[in-house]
Amino acid sequence: METLERTKDELLAINTQKLNNLQAILDKKWEDVIANSKMLQHIIAGKIDKRLFAIYMYETYHYTFHNARNQALVGVVGKDLPVQYMKFCFEHAEEETGHELMALHDIRELGVDVKNTAIPAPLMNTEILIAYLYWVSSKGNPLQRLGYSFWAENCYSYINPIIEVVKEKLQLKDTQLTFFIAHSNIDEDHAKEVQDMIVRHVKTDKDWEDIKTVMLTSLTLQERLLDGAFEEYNNLISGNESRYNFLSNLDD
Amino acid sequence: METLERTKDELLAINTQKLNNLQAILDKKWEDVIANSKMLQHIIAGKIDKRLFAIYMYETYHYTFHNARNQALVGVVGKDLPVQYMKFCFEHAEEETGHELMALHDIRELGVDVKNTAIPAPLMNTEILIAYLYWVSSKGNPLQRLGYSFWAENCYSYINPIIEVVKEKLQLKDTQLTFFIAHSNIDEDHAKEVQDMIVRHVKTDKDWEDIKTVMLTSLTLQERLLDGAFEEYNNLISGNESRYNFLSNLDD
Amino acid sequence: METLERTKDELLAINTQKLNNLQAILDKKWEDVIANSKMLQHIIAGKIDKRLFAIYMYETYHYTFHNARNQALVGVVGKDLPVQYMKFCFEHAEEETGHELMALHDIRELGVDVKNTAIPAPLMNTEILIAYLYWVSSKGNPLQRLGYSFWAENCYSYINPIIEVVKEKLQLKDTQLTFFIAHSNIDEDHAKEVQDMIVRHVKTDKDWEDIKTVMLTSLTLQERLLDGAFEEYNNLISGNESRYNFLSNLDD
Amino acid sequence: METLERTKDELLAINTQKLNNLQAILDKKWEDVIANSKMLQHIIAGKIDKRLFAIYMYETYHYTFHNARNQALVGVVGKDLPVQYMKFCFEHAEEETGHELMALHDIRELGVDVKNTAIPAPLMNTEILIAYLYWVSSKGNPLQRLGYSFWAENCYSYINPIIEVVKEKLQLKDTQLTFFIAHSNIDEDHAKEVQDMIVRHVKTDKDWEDIKTVMLTSLTLQERLLDGAFEEYNNLISGNESRYNFLSNLDD
Repeated sequence: METLERTKDELLAINTQKLNNLQAILDKKWEDVIANSKMLQHIIAGKIDKRLFAIYMYETYHYTFHNARNQALVGVVGKDLPVQYMKFCFEHAEEETGHELMALHDIRELGVDVKNTAIPAPLMNTEILIAYLYWVSSKGNPLQRLGYSFWAENCYSYINPIIEVVKEKLQLKDTQLTFFIAHSNIDEDHAKEVQDMIVRHVKTDKDWEDIKTVMLTSLTLQERLLDGAFEEYNNLISGNESRYNFLSNLDD
Repeated sequence: METLERTKDELLAINTQKLNNLQAILDKKWEDVIANSKMLQHIIAGKIDKRLFAIYMYETYHYTFHNARNQALVGVVGKDLPVQYMKFCFEHAEEETGHELMALHDIRELGVDVKNTAIPAPLMNTEILIAYLYWVSSKGNPLQRLGYSFWAENCYSYINPIIEVVKEKLQLKDTQLTFFIAHSNIDEDHAKEVQDMIVRHVKTDKDWEDIKTVMLTSLTLQERLLDGAFEEYNNLISGNESRYNFLSNLDD
Repeated sequence: METLERTKDELLAINTQKLNNLQAILDKKWEDVIANSKMLQHIIAGKIDKRLFAIYMYETYHYTFHNARNQALVGVVGKDLPVQYMKFCFEHAEEETGHELMALHDIRELGVDVKNTAIPAPLMNTEILIAYLYWVSSKGNPLQRLGYSFWAENCYSYINPIIEVVKEKLQLKDTQLTFFIAHSNIDEDHAKEVQDMIVRHVKTDKDWEDIKTVMLTSLTLQERLLDGAFEEYNNLISGNESRYNFLSNLDD
Repeated sequence: METLERTKDELLAINTQKLNNLQAILDKKWEDVIANSKMLQHIIAGKIDKRLFAIYMYETYHYTFHNARNQALVGVVGKDLPVQYMKFCFEHAEEETGHELMALHDIRELGVDVKNTAIPAPLMNTEILIAYLYWVSSKGNPLQRLGYSFWAENCYSYINPIIEVVKEKLQLKDTQLTFFIAHSNIDEDHAKEVQDMIVRHVKTDKDWEDIKTVMLTSLTLQERLLDGAFEEYNNLISGNESRYNFLSNLDD
């Protein structure tokens, strides 16, 4: 009995170490994302305006709309899930439900007449991220979606400095940035739960590999989403045809 | 504003009345089920034995295994769900997760070596109930699965007298009947939430019709599940070939 | 090499023998179905009228509508399917597409103004059959749906005598019974292909068991579909409320 | 009657014109793809070797594996599909079944011991393409997947010159390039059927928009797949760690 207990503790210790390795890979990836993202560099340089932020929040609305759904899907289709992990999937889905409305709220706070404005279709790279998240939630290793949650619930240390610039430049209050501010409090607990799920339920090298793949792929797709949003913004301010034309006068 | 408020209250009042009608239809259906079910009449007559109860609990294990999954599925695939109802789907799924283990626990308490015994495949009528619950959870009106929850979370007034007989005849303690006893406490809250969801979110006659159809169909399929379990029991005690042969000596 | 070839031939011989056993079980089941079905006995006794046949064809329309879809689903979700069986699934689905329109055609030939008449919702037992066929097509053994095709594509020797009575009593021509007459020609080839798939691709006792379970269950559900249609017919001719009231004057 | 006929002809004429517009957009996109793809330019410059072609064919194997499945999925989940289009989905799926084996065949012809070599997991951009094709096949407009088929079945005029270089430089016979050569004959008919489906069944501006979006997005993802394959090749020849290390000596 004691041996088994110790073995379990040892496994937790090994997994905690591997989680640290995953975190290090993530840190490196974020560094790249921030250094290479034209949009993030644009914001860091203080050149954010309401139109850019509105475009980004609309695209955020779109993929966030699907997060609860694809999170729950893991619990629905996953084979032989540990009860604890299955509960996590449904509980986490419940908590994510409706979060896309925070994005709409924040767009309204920018001055957009959200109620009377049709939401534009998602941009190409946004739709690709959505498609990918359904794919990893319904096929393959049911643990792998934790790779997405691992960065998404835990992104605030990386993006808070950027949000601060947005807040200051656009003169927004915390209550006008609910998606990021309110969310970050909720997500703090989530982040711990996600780490807990990984440490407790990951068993094999394949599990670690799959989680890492999904972490890096989904963050790459998020990076491309930013690229797409920024390209559309440049489109808009250049006077080209854009699905976001209705935002043209937002900074007047 | 006041008019709108009143209208909303009126709608709630109308829906509450319609819920009472649904309850009356359900009362009538339960009366039929109890009167016509050979298995329930057998139990009421005090002729229950451990083998019958074990068979019934194994079949219960099977469909309960899928309840959290098909409940969450409603939230995953439903179009334009109210946020509150979508949250209910995931929260309810989370609470139902692992309940099939209660059934296994109670089977062990009957004296079955659950750990070393392969769980027999579900009987025909059990599998049909499972199939139907996935169907109503993934196709058609996303509100309709509430018709199943409406009776399933609220069945204790009908079945408690029967459980009492089981308890007495098999000399079981509450802790040996966790599926029914512990469950009934959890389900009391669920039943209220289910009623609340119906009253708040049902809008059209079609919604009421769909909920009624699913209520009556799923309870009919539960009735057939009992028939199937009882037939298998009679099979077993007659010495015919049965997937439940391993229970033969349970009453020795 | 020669040994392997022989072994393959031997396997085919063994499987052909087992297919004969399956056929014998099916023969026995059909005997029961025909003997016990009130509706079939009613027809055999020459008491068919247009209303009963129209109700039956509407219910047939409903489950036939889904046949191509759930057939293709096997090929979409099945893991590690042999290429030949996967092709069979899609080809068979293609051939079944639109067959429900034959049922509507035959209803029109009975004198129903099909174009201007809303198709009533499926009866309870019809919906249960539909639900079950999606279930067996998407979960579990991908070979098991062959158990449904095995009887459904090969039912004409059992039902042709009954169709003959319908034809004579309702004075219908072959062109007014397209669902059964035209279908039976198409299905003759299908039946052979189904048998070929079973003989070639079934490997394990579990495969045979799963195919048998699906064969017996789906035929039982078809039997219940007949019961449901007959009950609704009796409802209608007794002057009770029925979704088929619009057929009341069909025999005038 | 005559008026209706003419109107139908007029619609076909309008759609044929719109199809030409779509073709023009596609021509422009291919021009960009070929001009910007480092891998295609590398090949055009005659610098292809067996390792690069093998990597590309493995990645091709991966997404081709899913093509029949996601094609059939359109027919399974699409609501209110015209019978003719539904038949097309299943027939087309049947014809695509097993085509991934052509890719494996051609890899074997390059000298890879395919039978005894585990197929490496798909690269990131390959998996993203796969995910996207399931997404567009299961959600949204059921006609939209035609946008993928429109370029994929009709790509030979663009890629044949590139295939010619591969053939010459690697000294391959047509029978060693079955994926491209045999496929191109099959696909010639497919391409016409795809165009026929678009012309006959597209009704609204939204349909055209959705088809165009899927055409451009899936071709962009194919372009990224090429980028990913080329990056992995460069990885391999630079002696970095690669899932394709087993191909290192292919050109000796």
